[in-house]
Amino acid sequence: MSVRVAVAGASGYAGGEVLRVLLGHPEVEIGAVTGNSNAGQRLGALQPHLLPLAGRVLGETTADVLAGHDVVFLALPHGQSAAVAEQLGDDTLVVDMGADFRLRDAADWERFYGSPHAGTWPYGLPELSGARAALEGSKRVAVPGCYPTAVTLALFPAYAAGLAEPEAVITAASGTSGAGKSAKPHLLGSEVMGSMSSYGVGGGHRHTPEITQNLSGVAGEHVTVSFTPTLAPMPRGILATCSARARPGTSAETVRQAYEKAYADEPFVHLLPEGQWPATASVYGSNAVQVQVAHDPHADRVIAISAIDNLAKGTAGGAVQSMNIALGLPEDTGLTTIGVAP
Amino acid sequence: MSVRVAVAGASGYAGGEVLRVLLGHPEVEIGAVTGNSNAGQRLGALQPHLLPLAGRVLGETTADVLAGHDVVFLALPHGQSAAVAEQLGDDTLVVDMGADFRLRDAADWERFYGSPHAGTWPYGLPELSGARAALEGSKRVAVPGCYPTAVTLALFPAYAAGLAEPEAVITAASGTSGAGKSAKPHLLGSEVMGSMSSYGVGGGHRHTPEITQNLSGVAGEHVTVSFTPTLAPMPRGILATCSARARPGTSAETVRQAYEKAYADEPFVHLLPEGQWPATASVYGSNAVQVQVAHDPHADRVIAISAIDNLAKGTAGGAVQSMNIALGLPEDTGLTTIGVAP
Amino acid sequence: MSVRVAVAGASGYAGGEVLRVLLGHPEVEIGAVTGNSNAGQRLGALQPHLLPLAGRVLGETTADVLAGHDVVFLALPHGQSAAVAEQLGDDTLVVDMGADFRLRDAADWERFYGSPHAGTWPYGLPELSGARAALEGSKRVAVPGCYPTAVTLALFPAYAAGLAEPEAVITAASGTSGAGKSAKPHLLGSEVMGSMSSYGVGGGHRHTPEITQNLSGVAGEHVTVSFTPTLAPMPRGILATCSARARPGTSAETVRQAYEKAYADEPFVHLLPEGQWPATASVYGSNAVQVQVAHDPHADRVIAISAIDNLAKGTAGGAVQSMNIALGLPEDTGLTTIGVAP
Amino acid sequence: MSVRVAVAGASGYAGGEVLRVLLGHPEVEIGAVTGNSNAGQRLGALQPHLLPLAGRVLGETTADVLAGHDVVFLALPHGQSAAVAEQLGDDTLVVDMGADFRLRDAADWERFYGSPHAGTWPYGLPELSGARAALEGSKRVAVPGCYPTAVTLALFPAYAAGLAEPEAVITAASGTSGAGKSAKPHLLGSEVMGSMSSYGVGGGHRHTPEITQNLSGVAGEHVTVSFTPTLAPMPRGILATCSARARPGTSAETVRQAYEKAYADEPFVHLLPEGQWPATASVYGSNAVQVQVAHDPHADRVIAISAIDNLAKGTAGGAVQSMNIALGLPEDTGLTTIGVAP
Repeated sequence: MSVRVAVAGASGYAGGEVLRVLLGHPEVEIGAVTGNSNAGQRLGALQPHLLPLAGRVLGETTADVLAGHDVVFLALPHGQSAAVAEQLGDDTLVVDMGADFRLRDAADWERFYGSPHAGTWPYGLPELSGARAALEGSKRVAVPGCYPTAVTLALFPAYAAGLAEPEAVITAASGTSGAGKSAKPHLLGSEVMGSMSSYGVGGGHRHTPEITQNLSGVAGEHVTVSFTPTLAPMPRGILATCSARARPGTSAETVRQAYEKAYADEPFVHLLPEGQWPATASVYGSNAVQVQVAHDPHADRVIAISAIDNLAKGTAGGAVQSMNIALGLPEDTGLTTIGVAP
Repeated sequence: MSVRVAVAGASGYAGGEVLRVLLGHPEVEIGAVTGNSNAGQRLGALQPHLLPLAGRVLGETTADVLAGHDVVFLALPHGQSAAVAEQLGDDTLVVDMGADFRLRDAADWERFYGSPHAGTWPYGLPELSGARAALEGSKRVAVPGCYPTAVTLALFPAYAAGLAEPEAVITAASGTSGAGKSAKPHLLGSEVMGSMSSYGVGGGHRHTPEITQNLSGVAGEHVTVSFTPTLAPMPRGILATCSARARPGTSAETVRQAYEKAYADEPFVHLLPEGQWPATASVYGSNAVQVQVAHDPHADRVIAISAIDNLAKGTAGGAVQSMNIALGLPEDTGLTTIGVAP
Repeated sequence: MSVRVAVAGASGYAGGEVLRVLLGHPEVEIGAVTGNSNAGQRLGALQPHLLPLAGRVLGETTADVLAGHDVVFLALPHGQSAAVAEQLGDDTLVVDMGADFRLRDAADWERFYGSPHAGTWPYGLPELSGARAALEGSKRVAVPGCYPTAVTLALFPAYAAGLAEPEAVITAASGTSGAGKSAKPHLLGSEVMGSMSSYGVGGGHRHTPEITQNLSGVAGEHVTVSFTPTLAPMPRGILATCSARARPGTSAETVRQAYEKAYADEPFVHLLPEGQWPATASVYGSNAVQVQVAHDPHADRVIAISAIDNLAKGTAGGAVQSMNIALGLPEDTGLTTIGVAP
Repeated sequence: MSVRVAVAGASGYAGGEVLRVLLGHPEVEIGAVTGNSNAGQRLGALQPHLLPLAGRVLGETTADVLAGHDVVFLALPHGQSAAVAEQLGDDTLVVDMGADFRLRDAADWERFYGSPHAGTWPYGLPELSGARAALEGSKRVAVPGCYPTAVTLALFPAYAAGLAEPEAVITAASGTSGAGKSAKPHLLGSEVMGSMSSYGVGGGHRHTPEITQNLSGVAGEHVTVSFTPTLAPMPRGILATCSARARPGTSAETVRQAYEKAYADEPFVHLLPEGQWPATASVYGSNAVQVQVAHDPHADRVIAISAIDNLAKGTAGGAVQSMNIALGLPEDTGLTTIGVAP
């Protein structure tokens, strides 16, 4: 099998990462790579780590350039995917790494993104109950946000097993690549090195409704989500610290069992042995997720922690995982669970 | 006035930082500097940033060496301060930067530290209600832990004003100097750079009872604390993200007012203007605290964030602030609210 | 004495740092702070670490706003200082932190900066032979570049003592703040963290003629300079590694003696004891310079290393040091030799 | 073909990295993994990024445990490889990642390492003239040091083409993993983050004779090497800045041509297009080498820069590359030229 793939938005971090992952995919041939403001430039100048593609020249992000591929990955600014996808036709697998098709609730979309809702596509988090089936054979995939990936994988087994009250409190630290490659003063190396900072406090982060949607779906009731992101001095990685009050009867044992059961057969989620705690370094560049969970007997809360690479499992690796499922390939084709450390 | 000061444990991070702060204190003359395993070495080899003290040689941490000073700062491993303090006499101001005298509850001490409780000294967090008065003229000061400093200053105004339910959920990210200078593999630069990691999850961190003690004291009822520390890839700084369910009637306005009132006259706590969020870079090397607070209307929680320098306000700066109060000096003598950034 | 000081370009890194240093200066009162594109904004939003100035509002960089001060610091883009300085009159001390007035050779200026040469002002590196005298009472000061500060202080004693051949080979690693606060993609935290990179190779860096001018002046003959800057993953600091072939008769002893003699009375340059090597962390936020020197007997080269804080001694601290001399104040007024570490 | 491989010293950074690389090698089956002080521990606790090997338990480094493999990688402290290799027999391919068998000159070995010389094995830098042929079919490989790899690949084309005088001046910045995983205070994250520092100045670094051996071999005459290593605040990577006075007739064109010719057919060395400069981020986790070269017309020097991943191409990747050649496999089997960035 040879799958011909195009990447739109190849000059940014998500686009670069999907190319990095696809270069290691044995069934994929990389076709068009596009980028609007950078069209005409060598990829070697924009993504110098992708040596095998150094000589490629970026095309424009148009339907003409993207046509004729089996799969098109869209790494575009929010709100631009629908127009491109419409022109690609139903026999092309379109994998949207933007937010446009993640939310089911149009009102949520409009409140957080400020534009008309484009629709909802099968959600590319295969570990979530029902998601894998919906992805099989689909021609459209909405790749989850990086924070929702980390948070959902940390918390959903607790909700699936009925161990937690429907009020989740989440703090997550992200590396700076989560903010993208556009040059803003607060993202300068001089500003971020040596500094942890807060932003989007008070429920305003756009990933909040997506987390709510995921956890509520699993819990079978509305889960209230208090989500506070922070910016960490590292290029990659998300460490999500999540908790909820335990339901009566919850104990260290029931929590452990619920997570062991949930992740027994998942190829990419690694429930750490007791006593070992997640670190983003361990999943650097990999599609793996480290999860650990505890029951705090004093506060009577379930505490779940996950570590992912925001660009890999959190964006591009997750996207390729979903592509594999959609195409009927083995789910882990071309994906690694080996991090680059130290 | 000239205050003669000794520092025991001068080769570590807390000891080095108290020397750094004291070097800028106009009323202080630095006397003995001691360190057990490093006794006999030049301070210039151990703390090369303290240029004016480079030629000093570390003495042994004995009562003889420490005698004859107006103030003795103890930067010793937990459990060693009591024996030293006893020998120093009641006319010496002893400022303990360890944990030994922070907790009032002996059972808490024994459970978390595993040794007999040494007692309780006036608590060196002047911003806490009643603490300033207890420090005035005192000959003994227990310097708070770094996490409890950050968390208490983030949350206490909400509890003082009755705006929050007595269940606090706290995630805090600390720079690596919080773990001290002893060489452990997981603290190597190769391990921590580029990585956020979790530890002490599930209520086991030793600072938990201290946070509980502080918040409960303010709230007038027992506050349950769920505290999860994380290790951030930076040498200094704590960013504490704290929240609690709002009490009925709490709004953005009542929260803002409570914090404005609490910190109106505090020289070191800076409530940021609305829309601006704490960053540890802003308080690097300074005794200032950045605080911001929000009411999340959807989750109905009070979210309070603080940024401190764990070694400065979180340890040595706070210690000198308390020393100033104990000695009757202006509280901000020799202390700065100016960070070193970028 | 109270010196009224204005800072033009207060929103950038050099401007922020000179404010940071001046806030600790006992004889200075900070007057106007200006910035063109940011005029009208609160300094607290732009330089949140400068808490005592948080409420100040940036004015426009005009002669009217800058008039009426004893001293004006210019932290402007290259080429803009002359026009401002001309309007300030001869009784105002103007300290230019840009490059405009550093070079004596107009052809060098034009070749490296591409604009007409504005002139030459007394050079603000007091440690350089003759420079201190020229600064005394001067109303104009050209603050050296950060690399030339580090390199000149590393190498000039070797040339002053006739120990080195006139071909200097220099590699220097700088923190990212040396590149300023303007948002460029290659300076994003995501790009620089975890990465050393090269730039300006082959003699093209604008600091090359300034280094050449300094070393040649000391050597009494033309010193050829091969200078290669690199960008290091840290916000601040320069580590300069400099070498030159030894002249006949040079030995470890003669080199050591030359440096001891050169720096015996310098308040800010610290020749490290043998066996200890410079680290930028030791001078973080300080005006100190760490220097070490060796004679490599095998390669028969003099190897001199220096560490400075590029923003402090390398820019703003050096500027205030020169201001002190120009005003007749003790040279170290308001300046520290204590770094913020770890 | 299935090659059964053992790794001795699997708990350290070099051992972990060779496992990481081998996990992606299609012809390799990983057999015994050993480590002395950590024998009996799970690899998952020591190398948590190597998820597929998490359940493996470290054995002791004995001939019995290492016997029965086609290839044995030795990642042992200097001086320990000879005793192990002797017991493994001549039909086992032994790849030594330590220094023991790199130097041909016994006196050099003894001067820099202080122990008797164990011998000389074929040198695992295939890009060096003659090295590839010597590796083919060999049962013993001495993997080069990380600095010698970076420096030799930067400079040898200049010497091979007779363009440079035999006095090389080299400054190289290394990430902290180059110093290994043993816990030493100066390698703590608190010490290294935010700091560039110097060490081993004056020709004393153990990699100096190896660099000299390589460049002299290419030049056909003794090349004097002045090598100054520095420690950079990053976990991985080496940026080597190398220069030598140009021989008469050398120009930008002749230099460019020499490098283009030298690297035209090398799969892992990428001579960057003019105007683009090496960055260690681009080769993070990859076996690629970025090289750029310039002629500084003013100083009349050849300036060559290289960036490698010290653990990958600089140690484990280079080791696997040599293993491939020794075994008759395609040289790039299991090796990538794709870095993990940003």
